Amino acid sequence: MVQDTVFAAELPWPEYQSRVQGGAVPIFIPLGSMEQHGHHMPMHVDVLLPTEFARRAAVATGGLVAPPFTYGYKSQQKSGGGNFFPGTTSLDGASLVNALKDVIREFARHGNRQLCIVNGHFENSWFIAEGIDLALRELRWSGIHDTKVVVLSYWDFVDQAAIDKLYPEGFLGWDIEHGGVLETSLMLRLYPDMVALEKAVDHPPAEFPPYDVYPPHPEWTPASGTLSSPKNASAEKGDILLDVCTRGIVKALRTEFSFKDQIAAE
Amino acid sequence: MVQDTVFAAELPWPEYQSRVQGGAVPIFIPLGSMEQHGHHMPMHVDVLLPTEFARRAAVATGGLVAPPFTYGYKSQQKSGGGNFFPGTTSLDGASLVNALKDVIREFARHGNRQLCIVNGHFENSWFIAEGIDLALRELRWSGIHDTKVVVLSYWDFVDQAAIDKLYPEGFLGWDIEHGGVLETSLMLRLYPDMVALEKAVDHPPAEFPPYDVYPPHPEWTPASGTLSSPKNASAEKGDILLDVCTRGIVKALRTEFSFKDQIAAE
Amino acid sequence: MVQDTVFAAELPWPEYQSRVQGGAVPIFIPLGSMEQHGHHMPMHVDVLLPTEFARRAAVATGGLVAPPFTYGYKSQQKSGGGNFFPGTTSLDGASLVNALKDVIREFARHGNRQLCIVNGHFENSWFIAEGIDLALRELRWSGIHDTKVVVLSYWDFVDQAAIDKLYPEGFLGWDIEHGGVLETSLMLRLYPDMVALEKAVDHPPAEFPPYDVYPPHPEWTPASGTLSSPKNASAEKGDILLDVCTRGIVKALRTEFSFKDQIAAE
Amino acid sequence: MVQDTVFAAELPWPEYQSRVQGGAVPIFIPLGSMEQHGHHMPMHVDVLLPTEFARRAAVATGGLVAPPFTYGYKSQQKSGGGNFFPGTTSLDGASLVNALKDVIREFARHGNRQLCIVNGHFENSWFIAEGIDLALRELRWSGIHDTKVVVLSYWDFVDQAAIDKLYPEGFLGWDIEHGGVLETSLMLRLYPDMVALEKAVDHPPAEFPPYDVYPPHPEWTPASGTLSSPKNASAEKGDILLDVCTRGIVKALRTEFSFKDQIAAE
Amino acid sequence: MVQDTVFAAELPWPEYQSRVQGGAVPIFIPLGSMEQHGHHMPMHVDVLLPTEFARRAAVATGGLVAPPFTYGYKSQQKSGGGNFFPGTTSLDGASLVNALKDVIREFARHGNRQLCIVNGHFENSWFIAEGIDLALRELRWSGIHDTKVVVLSYWDFVDQAAIDKLYPEGFLGWDIEHGGVLETSLMLRLYPDMVALEKAVDHPPAEFPPYDVYPPHPEWTPASGTLSSPKNASAEKGDILLDVCTRGIVKALRTEFSFKDQIAAE
Amino acid sequence: MVQDTVFAAELPWPEYQSRVQGGAVPIFIPLGSMEQHGHHMPMHVDVLLPTEFARRAAVATGGLVAPPFTYGYKSQQKSGGGNFFPGTTSLDGASLVNALKDVIREFARHGNRQLCIVNGHFENSWFIAEGIDLALRELRWSGIHDTKVVVLSYWDFVDQAAIDKLYPEGFLGWDIEHGGVLETSLMLRLYPDMVALEKAVDHPPAEFPPYDVYPPHPEWTPASGTLSSPKNASAEKGDILLDVCTRGIVKALRTEFSFKDQIAAE
Repeated sequence: MVQDTVFAAELPWPEYQSRVQGGAVPIFIPLGSMEQHGHHMPMHVDVLLPTEFARRAAVATGGLVAPPFTYGYKSQQKSGGGNFFPGTTSLDGASLVNALKDVIREFARHGNRQLCIVNGHFENSWFIAEGIDLALRELRWSGIHDTKVVVLSYWDFVDQAAIDKLYPEGFLGWDIEHGGVLETSLMLRLYPDMVALEKAVDHPPAEFPPYDVYPPHPEWTPASGTLSSPKNASAEKGDILLDVCTRGIVKALRTEFSFKDQIAAE
Repeated sequence: MVQDTVFAAELPWPEYQSRVQGGAVPIFIPLGSMEQHGHHMPMHVDVLLPTEFARRAAVATGGLVAPPFTYGYKSQQKSGGGNFFPGTTSLDGASLVNALKDVIREFARHGNRQLCIVNGHFENSWFIAEGIDLALRELRWSGIHDTKVVVLSYWDFVDQAAIDKLYPEGFLGWDIEHGGVLETSLMLRLYPDMVALEKAVDHPPAEFPPYDVYPPHPEWTPASGTLSSPKNASAEKGDILLDVCTRGIVKALRTEFSFKDQIAAE
Repeated sequence: MVQDTVFAAELPWPEYQSRVQGGAVPIFIPLGSMEQHGHHMPMHVDVLLPTEFARRAAVATGGLVAPPFTYGYKSQQKSGGGNFFPGTTSLDGASLVNALKDVIREFARHGNRQLCIVNGHFENSWFIAEGIDLALRELRWSGIHDTKVVVLSYWDFVDQAAIDKLYPEGFLGWDIEHGGVLETSLMLRLYPDMVALEKAVDHPPAEFPPYDVYPPHPEWTPASGTLSSPKNASAEKGDILLDVCTRGIVKALRTEFSFKDQIAAE
Repeated sequence: MVQDTVFAAELPWPEYQSRVQGGAVPIFIPLGSMEQHGHHMPMHVDVLLPTEFARRAAVATGGLVAPPFTYGYKSQQKSGGGNFFPGTTSLDGASLVNALKDVIREFARHGNRQLCIVNGHFENSWFIAEGIDLALRELRWSGIHDTKVVVLSYWDFVDQAAIDKLYPEGFLGWDIEHGGVLETSLMLRLYPDMVALEKAVDHPPAEFPPYDVYPPHPEWTPASGTLSSPKNASAEKGDILLDVCTRGIVKALRTEFSFKDQIAAE
Repeated sequence: MVQDTVFAAELPWPEYQSRVQGGAVPIFIPLGSMEQHGHHMPMHVDVLLPTEFARRAAVATGGLVAPPFTYGYKSQQKSGGGNFFPGTTSLDGASLVNALKDVIREFARHGNRQLCIVNGHFENSWFIAEGIDLALRELRWSGIHDTKVVVLSYWDFVDQAAIDKLYPEGFLGWDIEHGGVLETSLMLRLYPDMVALEKAVDHPPAEFPPYDVYPPHPEWTPASGTLSSPKNASAEKGDILLDVCTRGIVKALRTEFSFKDQIAAE
Repeated sequence: MVQDTVFAAELPWPEYQSRVQGGAVPIFIPLGSMEQHGHHMPMHVDVLLPTEFARRAAVATGGLVAPPFTYGYKSQQKSGGGNFFPGTTSLDGASLVNALKDVIREFARHGNRQLCIVNGHFENSWFIAEGIDLALRELRWSGIHDTKVVVLSYWDFVDQAAIDKLYPEGFLGWDIEHGGVLETSLMLRLYPDMVALEKAVDHPPAEFPPYDVYPPHPEWTPASGTLSSPKNASAEKGDILLDVCTRGIVKALRTEFSFKDQIAAE
């Protein structure tokens, strides 16, 4: 049964080796964080969600999911509430960059040439770009010039049609979706036992001035830690999100990678 | 139900905050690796096992388990077979040191002063020492002088009585236990679905000369990747190990930390 | 005459010292890049523009402008065309982070406690956040706890009313404004000799898929290097932008900093 | 008009590309600092002067001038008065080394193989050497073996005949020329509005013991910050300096680089 | 006479060059520390002993001994007493790793392909592994793929027969040999003037719990700093050790390296 | 007898502790290199000479000499011939900076507040400055504000009277003294067995253009590796140098440090 897994670390190495042989299998690396997500959700939302999207993408492409990065870059006030919350546990930028560089270099050593970073924590974005750039530079020094790395954040695949269904009262931007309808709906659908919607705090959307300040003003962030109210989240919206994001991700991978498509076989 | 968890990242932040308030709760940080463990076991053995010991320790002490480090330092030939196996995916020393330093600093920011690194991957050992030393230095610069960090590798708690039971034909040292009776027995007891004992390769214990060589000679490592045969592993031996290690760990924590003992309450 | 300058490096040190004494003077640090900006504009647009906004802010607040950072982080395809263009000359993330950390620490050594990073290059954003975080950490280790750093990108102060005037045919987002109407209009107003609008290449707005790929596909970027057409740029629009951004910035500074307001005196 | 510029960042990228094509054009990178230069001069003297020498060299060789480094290494007491003055704003060594390494690597990416570092701040010297060494090492790893980097500090081109004219009362060494006759004369000739010679403090040449001490003794440095009196500076001496240094630099470049000489065409 | 030396730094460079020409000469790099070794021994024991073993190995193989590393990684409580003793003077891990990486890269630049790290300080072990790994990586980037590095700690060559003679009352493990019979006997044989055996403190072997704690508990370490009593040390035991270790080392080198054997010629 | 040593690492730790107690004892840290010094001298001249000056200074001041740094920064062409010679074995700048920072921090941990870096290798100079600056910064973060570090290069204490005696035919500057009369005379006096003056190559003083080039032109350096001829060196000149430098150094230390003067007692 475990033999059917798409999680690379659940395989014995000979099985891993036979799966990645030839290099035509995408490797998905989920990057998350340990970050507060309001009163109603646990702090590893940003690990669970990209891992699930990575799993679905791996199933569809015959690929494998690498172990997730369980810690990420520092929570920023306008996208994650700020790094001053108890529980939020973050890495310095250089630590994240270097760890990602190492992991990319290692998967390339195994012969993989198609890597996909599946990001679940907005603040990781630029350090992912840097980690990849440094890894590809080192790979070139090693004479390896054909590694391709796709980076995606699942929410970027939500299209206008889905937005209209998800936010009938109007969409205010991904930036304040921290702990809001997007993440809560997905969690309700995937990990309902981990969501206590009754504890969610209803509040107007966070409004921030057009600049940042350090150290942050804690009072800018709603006291609950979410940036928009999760009250309108539902498992049904989670289904919509799972569907649109998974389809979008698989379509992107078909464009960028070469693999034996598994969709028909599902 | 999730409210009963000892996994810190499964808690909403207000619950986390109330648990760690006062600082008298140990935080357990499991450090693992993605490393080949022979033909019969998956590659995240070194994550699963310390996480389980951390969980048991947290239950006993009222503490919390931080998200595990899913990647570790490079596999060394005499303790892990060597870093040349496909699948083994490792960090540079500095990457591990800095990430651990960051995480310790963050847990201290939350008010925690009792941290326990639960190591599952021998090669992490010295980089753990360095990460802690650098973190404590920075904490002192911040005026925090009362952080205590305990580091333990669960196998160090196996006593002679247990060894006699586990290795009736003679014990050859922890150094060649990679993928052998110790780890396999624990996995058989805890995650039997993840072990395919029938695929385990029987071979004489690895013998190494009294020096190291880089790049390694692959032929020094048994072809299966394990350093001693797992054939004599059993779930019963796993029970012995779980028992002796958990008791030893809890005893150590009682000596070093102050917490409200939960054992009676179990 | 030079005595009236707001550029800190144009002052002799005793004059600088007397200006910053007491710490109630904001220091503005412009961060730019050397980056291609299409066929019609030079490559230091991202230095010139934030320096001008910093100058205006310094005039209004009695503050001083530090020397600009003339190089910035690597151009990203969806916001700057990509780092593969000849001429674009960029820093690794760590180099930018560390240099900014050093400069902040030095201005704090002079007694300044109100610093404002004026960013002109989108890609610098997260490395600015990291540089500030590391600088504030070191300042705390030095016993300095009252430094405040405001970060702003001038385009974030363009309000809806201005957008309506600037983009009567519809606004497509700041992300594709690289070398477009925003920057070109400002340059036409401020440095008309440096703009060759007749060389500007008209093209439809760049459209990118919802993911990134490394190494980038050069063909995703319009061949000219701009991400939207600058053809509708004008000095008049530059006036609108200068006005709305300067007013917005000064208003933000009044909220965050304490200084002797110079607006009436202008 | 701007089309005639030799400042690389003032060009649109296609023009830059056509100028550097073939690699036979030297790129000049000025390295300066923000450093006190006495009561009579601004703090960016070390940026302005090497930029001007770079400009002249670029005109003569058909080359281009890169954006200057506006911050440099920490002022040392015996050559710059010490890093304790308000206004002096410096980088750690590693920050300078890494930024220079990055910029060299980028100019090489554009196809340039003839780079010239024009240094205006003595304290940068050894970190320049290190930055170049690391850059050339990385370029070799990239398979690029033909990059040549010339490093020059303009004052090293002042010959004995010029010294006799500049210092009729005797020359005491470049080491104490900080803010003295050399720099002041050049500034009087090039940027007279930025010099307030009447504010210059006359004092005997600084005398230092044959060792260094950290933290420095501020009283070792003349209170004005200059290490020798600028009183005998003059625009005429500036002409002598401009002439001898420019000729010396161009001669050096003819020896080391291959380019289409522009002198006759001037 | 000096011409007969095996210490590389005692040679003029042309002699060094002629010795290493062809690359078939091993280079031995001793790594030590400045670390307390009890009341009866000096603090450079970990430099003197590996240097002597390196010297003997160089004599036997026609090789050369590089200058020793005089500082090493931080003393750990269970193997060196702990880094809190006055006199113990240690490096951060990264400092040791990078310095070793540099030195390996330089010896490879001279054409050497057979390097042997002779370690005298247990705590250096893992940082040696990392330094070598990073050096070999950089050498591969430089196109050098045939460098071989052997790492040895002399005590690993003591066989059971020797142990029986050295510890007739029973051997308790190398881990607590810090300042004990092993090192003291060797010093008595090689540097008797540096040992004051009458000042040695007799004490029962150190006993440590099966975990580590940071900051260390000083009371865990015997007050003298040694971890086992040196009272039974003797020059005769030193002879046994010199003999068994030297023979073992030379045998290892014969297996791993190719060189013109000098043993017959001795 | 060894008890009389001034070499810190030759002492047992309790003796070290009693010597440094009270902090009024200077600690001398010699910094050298492994660098070619012509055909007639070994490659550790830059270690031997500063160590001897440190020893003399320690005798005079009741201080202690730390283990020398046996490797230094890369040889530069105009001061050491260049780093391309076989045998020359150098560190990257950051490696030297960080190792020195660590060692200073450790000696301060022992309670020492008077440190003296005795440099024997010109190229180390600026990296010493940086290492000290970073160490003092970290010590301030630790609340230690009274550490004083003196840096000296012994040749800077040669006065004009001595120069007249040493170079009757005219002195051409310390910059080309590499392997010349200065170092050779000192070695002839201190380590005559290590000098083969008959192998010294006589050649005119090296002449360099007023700029540097990387990679260096090997032909700029005299083929022997020395920058001026050592032919006029003599043990008598060594006596002059030992005398003038030692007196100068002790005088400097009297000015900067507080200690119980030992000169009368000699």
